[in-house]
Amino acid sequence: MATSGAPASGEDSLIARYFKPLATDPGAFGLTDDAAVLKALGEDIVVTTDAIVEGVHFLADDPPHTIAKKALRVNLSDLAAKGATLAGFVLTLALRAVDESWLAAFARGLGEDAGAFNCPLLGGDTVSTPGPLMVSITAFGRVPQGKMVHRSGAKPGDHVVVTGTIGDAALGLDILRKGRVATALASDAASRDMLVGRYRVPEPRNALASVIRAHAHAAMDVSDGLAGDIAKLCAASGVSAVIDLPSVPVSPAAKAVLASSVAGIETLISGGDDYEILCTIPRSALEEFTRIAHALRVAVSPIGTIVTGVSAPKFLDAMGKELALTRRSYSHF
Amino acid sequence: MATSGAPASGEDSLIARYFKPLATDPGAFGLTDDAAVLKALGEDIVVTTDAIVEGVHFLADDPPHTIAKKALRVNLSDLAAKGATLAGFVLTLALRAVDESWLAAFARGLGEDAGAFNCPLLGGDTVSTPGPLMVSITAFGRVPQGKMVHRSGAKPGDHVVVTGTIGDAALGLDILRKGRVATALASDAASRDMLVGRYRVPEPRNALASVIRAHAHAAMDVSDGLAGDIAKLCAASGVSAVIDLPSVPVSPAAKAVLASSVAGIETLISGGDDYEILCTIPRSALEEFTRIAHALRVAVSPIGTIVTGVSAPKFLDAMGKELALTRRSYSHF
Repeated sequence: MATSGAPASGEDSLIARYFKPLATDPGAFGLTDDAAVLKALGEDIVVTTDAIVEGVHFLADDPPHTIAKKALRVNLSDLAAKGATLAGFVLTLALRAVDESWLAAFARGLGEDAGAFNCPLLGGDTVSTPGPLMVSITAFGRVPQGKMVHRSGAKPGDHVVVTGTIGDAALGLDILRKGRVATALASDAASRDMLVGRYRVPEPRNALASVIRAHAHAAMDVSDGLAGDIAKLCAASGVSAVIDLPSVPVSPAAKAVLASSVAGIETLISGGDDYEILCTIPRSALEEFTRIAHALRVAVSPIGTIVTGVSAPKFLDAMGKELALTRRSYSHF
Repeated sequence: MATSGAPASGEDSLIARYFKPLATDPGAFGLTDDAAVLKALGEDIVVTTDAIVEGVHFLADDPPHTIAKKALRVNLSDLAAKGATLAGFVLTLALRAVDESWLAAFARGLGEDAGAFNCPLLGGDTVSTPGPLMVSITAFGRVPQGKMVHRSGAKPGDHVVVTGTIGDAALGLDILRKGRVATALASDAASRDMLVGRYRVPEPRNALASVIRAHAHAAMDVSDGLAGDIAKLCAASGVSAVIDLPSVPVSPAAKAVLASSVAGIETLISGGDDYEILCTIPRSALEEFTRIAHALRVAVSPIGTIVTGVSAPKFLDAMGKELALTRRSYSHF
């Protein structure tokens, strides 16, 4: 991404107008060069990349500022789970045509989050596409050398812990698609709005990055569904897990949906788009981890235990009966 | 991008099969985690991002291995111009559906280049799209601290220098579109193939990165057309330039097209997709710069001079007459 003072093409003037104000880091060179510089400050650079596509990860009529926030936040969520302090991001925006009011709102949303999360725009590329809108972001964080938190460190005896609540976003998407959840909550606009908000604008837990780095044996963010993601974490660590379903944190709105029998717990734990953190914490550190998370105003819930073995994680109901899962997570293909 | 040994979704098994072999850097963790680690080694990390879209930057029936190579090389070209040593890249691949033979060929092309340029895959994201294929790459390089070469350092008196030849890719695209260039070269299959090859698989000049860092006052790659790109470099540097059109390096195939009057020099210098390096070299360093470039088997041509002033660069023909340009470069919007 680059813009210049002279023979401005349409692309360059768009970038200057809408995105230059977000490029507050000196290494972005005001988006006037072909590349950015990321200072390492003696630490490791942690790199993650995630794209969102219209009609797949967001809906065509979602507000542009929430599309921008979601595109950035799904990446920030990965960095939070890896224990990284945010450093910046680059953006690729594929647009069908230029709708300046859309772009202005998109850039406003992106700028709000870049500021709030202290994660400046470093550069990018704007391209035209005949197809759906797509936003691809690569985000950067820093960790002390060798200190990135992996998926693969879980140990038998660890508590399995998740942040926030699980399943709200999947219900929110169903509401936007005018599914049965919308009917179940027909008289409760506040709950419907909350669930839709959780789908459109996830809440990455970057405040917890340093405490995760300090205490978690393993961590990842929950993007494709808790059930599938914990299976991935266990597989990477060579362990298994037993999850106590009544301990899985569920919002009051999601509880109302469960009570209506429109959706079961399986929907909540396999739906995806949560962008909460799933981590494993050794028994000795759980109290300290929980205390610091609460001081940072992030809810954390122990939901089970890491056990030896390589079988798929078990999900037990209040009676100790194992839930049979037909689908563990979302897959694109 | 992550893959795991267990409950493999379609996406995960695709990644494992085709892309894990490209993730040779220890910081990629074999694509089994949510993020990669890029070691800074006490240097600055240079970051660039460029996307290519089917029907815009490549054609739907281009071979998959050339699409992969182009997607990577347009990024490597930026890093070459910034004087950076290659460190790795992350990939976002938006696919309509999974065609395994297409993916295998794509990954093969990408892997050949990742190996040849010593630039390993560090991570990525594979998403489904209902629209055109899109490949977005963010690539990383390293420079000693503060030593990235900028667009903005050109000084009056500098030689303007370009690598390789200019305009071939624009002619190659015209051939693929069955335009008049194809007719002009109807009896010369070798020239047609060469020009198409230059469009599909650019030749980034990464071999020159260190000599550019050592000697160039300013540099950028030529992606949107030489005429527009030199205007951008001049604007960023607060200078102007006088370009001697007969000195602009042109391939024998492009010369044949010029001779046929199907295209003029304006087409060559405004067509874009060259991915050659445009740089400015102080007079005292030109001989040394040229000597080293030739030793590295990269042709470099002085094509003009940086002058004071802020007017648009001038392009003079063999008679000293200024070429009037109706279009300086490609813009997406």
